[in-house]
Amino acid sequence: MNEPIAMQPIGFVRNDVAAPDEARWEEVVSRIEIAPELAPALEGVEEFSHLLIIFAFDRRPAGPRPLQVHPERRAELPLVGVFATRSPNRPNPIAVTTVELLGRAGNVLTVRGLDALDGTPVLDVKPYLPRGDRFSEVRVPAWLQRLWEMHDREQGRG
Amino acid sequence: MNEPIAMQPIGFVRNDVAAPDEARWEEVVSRIEIAPELAPALEGVEEFSHLLIIFAFDRRPAGPRPLQVHPERRAELPLVGVFATRSPNRPNPIAVTTVELLGRAGNVLTVRGLDALDGTPVLDVKPYLPRGDRFSEVRVPAWLQRLWEMHDREQGRG
Repeated sequence: MNEPIAMQPIGFVRNDVAAPDEARWEEVVSRIEIAPELAPALEGVEEFSHLLIIFAFDRRPAGPRPLQVHPERRAELPLVGVFATRSPNRPNPIAVTTVELLGRAGNVLTVRGLDALDGTPVLDVKPYLPRGDRFSEVRVPAWLQRLWEMHDREQGRG
Repeated sequence: MNEPIAMQPIGFVRNDVAAPDEARWEEVVSRIEIAPELAPALEGVEEFSHLLIIFAFDRRPAGPRPLQVHPERRAELPLVGVFATRSPNRPNPIAVTTVELLGRAGNVLTVRGLDALDGTPVLDVKPYLPRGDRFSEVRVPAWLQRLWEMHDREQGRG
């Protein structure tokens, strides 16, 4: 399928997380340092409580990628297509995560819940819109319910 | 800020919409034709009711982009940073829209609510997860409330 589309980082993530298994992501507070010349494009984001952060998976191992994975590499869960997961193992290195915006100071956003390692390139910032981004009647597979129960148990919430 | 990140289309949108003002997007039904060799990566998406579609704004006018816009080019709304809007006028040509999945047949998804023109390149498909993508306590600016009231009036819902 034809020509590639080139994206340029607009900024970088700064936090204390150097490896994926070090973090309870919901609690991680990160700074997103946007290029100073783009600061005017952030004007007004502080009026939103939540933002979508689009970032690049920049530390994936090289080599061929599987088209199907066991979610979170848990062998007890079924093998499913990567598009049925949020795994970094997908054709394009794009991540989308909704975060809570704690504040903005000029070109720097402070957010909670961003599951990105220190130094990750950020591609876009978008406002979270209740009309369009929030759906109440949502169906998910049984394996995902099982995975969330595992998370709750592992984090002592179950 | 350093090197560009190259993305490859994984498929294309097919619908009847050739220009942005032709559509009431919530009602538009589109087919997303994923490259046949990637069909195994879709296995299991049909168990989700909603998907995030990440696609490229491929028909933006060339030339310099403003960093601030009037939302939907409505002069009565304030000038805000493009990162406080979902405008195509943003540094990287990335769109993220949550759609309702109507069905999958092999490498083809049928979805409702995708605001993309016929022929648009698709970059990624992700499941919509109530944990992570759905937030109930959300704050938005006053101008956005006004914009939604305008939409409701214009569509005879107000």
